[in-house]
Amino acid sequence: MELELYDFERAAERLKPILHHTELDLSSTFSRLTGGKIYLKCENRQKTGSFKIRGASNKIACMIERGERCPVVASSAGNHAQGVAYASSRFGIPATIVMPKAAPIAKVQATEGYGAKVVLTGSCYDDAYNEALRICEEEGAKFLHPYNDLEVIAGQGTLALEILGDLPTADIIIVPAGGGGLLAGMALAAHLLNPRVKVYGVQAEGAPAIALSFQQKKLVTTESASTIADGIAVKVPGDITVDLINKYAAGVVTVSEREIANAILLLMERCKQIVEPAGATPLAAVLSGKIDVKGKRVVCLMSGGNVDVSFLQSIIEQGLVARNRRLKFVATLADRPGSLVQLLSVLADKRANVISVQHDQLYRRLNPGQTSVHVVCEVGGAEHGKSVIDAIAATGCEVAMEAE
Amino acid sequence: MELELYDFERAAERLKPILHHTELDLSSTFSRLTGGKIYLKCENRQKTGSFKIRGASNKIACMIERGERCPVVASSAGNHAQGVAYASSRFGIPATIVMPKAAPIAKVQATEGYGAKVVLTGSCYDDAYNEALRICEEEGAKFLHPYNDLEVIAGQGTLALEILGDLPTADIIIVPAGGGGLLAGMALAAHLLNPRVKVYGVQAEGAPAIALSFQQKKLVTTESASTIADGIAVKVPGDITVDLINKYAAGVVTVSEREIANAILLLMERCKQIVEPAGATPLAAVLSGKIDVKGKRVVCLMSGGNVDVSFLQSIIEQGLVARNRRLKFVATLADRPGSLVQLLSVLADKRANVISVQHDQLYRRLNPGQTSVHVVCEVGGAEHGKSVIDAIAATGCEVAMEAE
Repeated sequence: MELELYDFERAAERLKPILHHTELDLSSTFSRLTGGKIYLKCENRQKTGSFKIRGASNKIACMIERGERCPVVASSAGNHAQGVAYASSRFGIPATIVMPKAAPIAKVQATEGYGAKVVLTGSCYDDAYNEALRICEEEGAKFLHPYNDLEVIAGQGTLALEILGDLPTADIIIVPAGGGGLLAGMALAAHLLNPRVKVYGVQAEGAPAIALSFQQKKLVTTESASTIADGIAVKVPGDITVDLINKYAAGVVTVSEREIANAILLLMERCKQIVEPAGATPLAAVLSGKIDVKGKRVVCLMSGGNVDVSFLQSIIEQGLVARNRRLKFVATLADRPGSLVQLLSVLADKRANVISVQHDQLYRRLNPGQTSVHVVCEVGGAEHGKSVIDAIAATGCEVAMEAE
Repeated sequence: MELELYDFERAAERLKPILHHTELDLSSTFSRLTGGKIYLKCENRQKTGSFKIRGASNKIACMIERGERCPVVASSAGNHAQGVAYASSRFGIPATIVMPKAAPIAKVQATEGYGAKVVLTGSCYDDAYNEALRICEEEGAKFLHPYNDLEVIAGQGTLALEILGDLPTADIIIVPAGGGGLLAGMALAAHLLNPRVKVYGVQAEGAPAIALSFQQKKLVTTESASTIADGIAVKVPGDITVDLINKYAAGVVTVSEREIANAILLLMERCKQIVEPAGATPLAAVLSGKIDVKGKRVVCLMSGGNVDVSFLQSIIEQGLVARNRRLKFVATLADRPGSLVQLLSVLADKRANVISVQHDQLYRRLNPGQTSVHVVCEVGGAEHGKSVIDAIAATGCEVAMEAE
């Protein structure tokens, strides 16, 4: 049994009073960079910070329409947890979310904040999953699968209706793919609504189960799923989702960790928006040329914005290094008072902002009476960094750049 | 001569084909935190990343309507520079922007990217200002003041029409104030459109010229202007702007640097949006209770989003410290192989992520045969940090927390 346009339409009606109709932004920056007309669908600013609430809400609403008012259980430390927590409390259904003990405190608090009971157990997702099934058995509760469920898929697919309602001329829609619920729902909904529209999925190179499944036209699982994009780090996609994707998606591509990080940073700088790694993969695919968008109207779905700020900090740091905004060098100095101030005066004159200075008496190339210092400073770019090094060398000091 | 509603209406008509009508977002998080109904006006995602383009565009459009097609000159290293650059290129008028030599490379590049010529000169704003006047003299160009100009003020005031069009029931509008153009324009426009609506200005504690002017009901300047909110770090507000503010604003309050930083971080975490320090001051004023918003419909204007990512990084770092997400301690160890691994095993067991480890043989309280290590690690919060310290102490190791 497959979904029909009517199922997506009914799902959209159920979600309407609960959710935000999120913005669809034309980005002149990314349009200029790619030669396409690039729109960003801001589902990162959806309630609970991700699209997952669509599937969870539709599922619970369908249960209630069928008279199933039993408690629900989910196992997730991610956006599905928050989606189920919010939706169940909204419909007045008790919910239990099982997470591994290692789940970030922030996620636990957010989920509890939406009114769900959180159970911490075991060391990995499988432990949490088994505990969730045990609770369902014990309490007569219903397990809500994050993606391999037609009513969840119908909920995610409402995004295609929303996007094509706002931009009927769209040629391409690009969405992240992990378990495949979002991609399956959107590919099918778009196909039913307007077969002219192509829907692509994007995966991380380190977690390519759906890309492989699409290539081989059968369900493929992977041994590992290693990526910063935790929202799509899935080893075992669904049989229902893969079947729909293989029939209705236009393609599935993969992007590298560096491409994802670069897209996150550009979205912060150019669009003033915070997007989680999974949510940045569609833009990463477009910017890296994995999908040809020249002359097309293209919607990149920013599927979520739930990212810890300390993670953002490391993304920014990597971005600054990649753009040569961090200069790292080692200088050999006479081991006497005044040497360091002379070096630092050069940096001050060149307006390079010092981040760290570390003395190293064990540096391999030192003669007696010498010391070395490792310095990290902030510069405007490669050219500025070069001029700082040249200025230090001009004082007679031996200096060498260090790789990050 | 004062502006009439007609002037704001005409300005809005001029801007309509050029600018974004930015989103007005109801924030359930901030509403819950404050007891008001808090809306965010997302002018951080306006073209050029700030509202300043409104005033600049209206000014240049007015000049053209009067037949003045002369080149324009501005002195600014901030949002006014980008606003003038974009608007002039849009209207086909040559523009020169004068910046101090110390202007960040990113700002220079952005301004050139919008098609303006950038001249770098001198060490401070005054040098740039004087050079700008010299260029005007020499080339018969027109100097565009960033705030003390009725046509600029009319442009900024269009935001009041836009907000009250989208939310006619608004009770309070809160905006940042530096030179006063935005506050003057919005206070007057709101007064003319609907005198029920109160418009407040927010300044940084370290740059309170308009707050003082409002208190004393006369133009007050300050000796210094020291704040992370560079967009509102103004020592000399305008006589035109102060006059309008003193007549039509409901009040002007100040916020601390820490309140601003906290608001920036919350906007990233809860609203997935990047806002520059000046643009976060209205929300900072609301969250710190400086303006009573209980039971009111309140619009906080996020005036701009142009902030360097390395600055965001330091804001995040400060936020993590303030929330006890960074644990810093010194432990005294036996100076022999294996001591450090024992300490680090405790951290691993407690799931505290190590950021840095530094040996310190010179620590004041050491006995012979001992060494000390300073450790910084990432924890979930104060409670987690305490449990890490307790676990280390339980191994018999002497350990003390260090202040950041």
